[in-house]
Amino acid sequence: MEGFNFSTEVSVRFAETDAQGIAHHASFVVWLEVARVAYLAEHAGGYLSIRAEGIEALTTEVQLAYRQAAYFDDRLRIWTRCVDLRGARFRYEYAIERGSELIAEGSTSHATVDAISRQPTRIPAWFVEAVAKAES
Amino acid sequence: MEGFNFSTEVSVRFAETDAQGIAHHASFVVWLEVARVAYLAEHAGGYLSIRAEGIEALTTEVQLAYRQAAYFDDRLRIWTRCVDLRGARFRYEYAIERGSELIAEGSTSHATVDAISRQPTRIPAWFVEAVAKAES
Amino acid sequence: MEGFNFSTEVSVRFAETDAQGIAHHASFVVWLEVARVAYLAEHAGGYLSIRAEGIEALTTEVQLAYRQAAYFDDRLRIWTRCVDLRGARFRYEYAIERGSELIAEGSTSHATVDAISRQPTRIPAWFVEAVAKAES
Amino acid sequence: MEGFNFSTEVSVRFAETDAQGIAHHASFVVWLEVARVAYLAEHAGGYLSIRAEGIEALTTEVQLAYRQAAYFDDRLRIWTRCVDLRGARFRYEYAIERGSELIAEGSTSHATVDAISRQPTRIPAWFVEAVAKAES
Repeated sequence: MEGFNFSTEVSVRFAETDAQGIAHHASFVVWLEVARVAYLAEHAGGYLSIRAEGIEALTTEVQLAYRQAAYFDDRLRIWTRCVDLRGARFRYEYAIERGSELIAEGSTSHATVDAISRQPTRIPAWFVEAVAKAES
Repeated sequence: MEGFNFSTEVSVRFAETDAQGIAHHASFVVWLEVARVAYLAEHAGGYLSIRAEGIEALTTEVQLAYRQAAYFDDRLRIWTRCVDLRGARFRYEYAIERGSELIAEGSTSHATVDAISRQPTRIPAWFVEAVAKAES
Repeated sequence: MEGFNFSTEVSVRFAETDAQGIAHHASFVVWLEVARVAYLAEHAGGYLSIRAEGIEALTTEVQLAYRQAAYFDDRLRIWTRCVDLRGARFRYEYAIERGSELIAEGSTSHATVDAISRQPTRIPAWFVEAVAKAES
Repeated sequence: MEGFNFSTEVSVRFAETDAQGIAHHASFVVWLEVARVAYLAEHAGGYLSIRAEGIEALTTEVQLAYRQAAYFDDRLRIWTRCVDLRGARFRYEYAIERGSELIAEGSTSHATVDAISRQPTRIPAWFVEAVAKAES
């Protein structure tokens, strides 16, 4: 998808559907996290490499716009990019497709904190560089 | 809380926490739904009374800003109001407190559709009136 | 219910339903945990009082038999008793009712471990006594 | 694994962990379902081919024994076999491994019902044959 270099896939689990017969809207929030984990694995040594530095990335905002319902067993592609890295903050943007059909768009904002003190701590330089390379 | 007439409470379940030791951010999306269901039960005969008319309310947007972490067994109060009812669309706004501390703020947007055809269908007049009364 | 001294209630959340239109069977596992937490709050100073001693209670077995489907917004009563406390192990047994109708029965087994070393550690005497009193 | 012809893999999602720092025990119930869906896709035209006949497979029992904790991002292999098909009932048995280490074992029991009447209905012959072939 235009503007995205990375994507990963999920299949809608039966447990993720609801009595409307569609994927529950909270399931998408979990899929965005799955996509971030896959992005980090691809580009920055994995989420565990950040935790290994004693840093936690907290989620400070979630925004999702649902365009089409998703159904059990649908194969969804989650396009993911990391943007706006500054100090102790960064964002991800997402587009979810089923085939060529746009299912949802969203973004999440994150803050890096020291795992012990829970105080804001700058994003490691290697992470900023890894993202710059991934998004170039 | 200023500007809200309705609230309901949830306790953070252990299953809703994550390995950061806090309530997972997707759990909040489920709690907003719990709050909507409680709001409808209080003011509009319950969600089932809408479904009984052959109408489904789809969630079209979710937005959440997390201010403070929530922890296992925290008792959270979810302030809820229904706003901007027009045609086949309406929104909810939320503020989540632990005691007097603001934990999160958010909103969800919804569209009413015919349960069978999935086509947009106007919000029933009795629902608009029930909300107007609740929010007055 | 015969043989049970304690119960707590949950309402089926919409997020807990699935595309069969019923409460997803994994939701029940979460409800059993909610019931254990309520049991401990009532009888043993709460789950946090166990964690405060540096002890974690791990779940080592889950068994559930589903008798009737549960539906969105159903109010379920979870009867709960703690049994077979020995050394570093104990069990809970459960019966879930909707009104007077049996919905599910189950049990969970648990082991107490040191929170740091993850080695088995005896159930504290005060906990054994609190349960004995609760179940007498 | 001895006695199993089929397996599928899941990675532990961050949302599936809890404040004990491990995969929450209810997550395993969802993974068993993921494994059943993969099994059916491989051997019996997929779960949707059963639903297409107007039959729902209900879960009537779940049993899980947890041997070792699983952690965020662990890659787990779920060995799955379908057994004891009789009339309107069948069972699955599972073993979950991380590498060569046994993490959990379990089983689920299921009943086939007519999707409309919810009355028990025999397992279709083609399904019994597909399973017999898969397990031979």
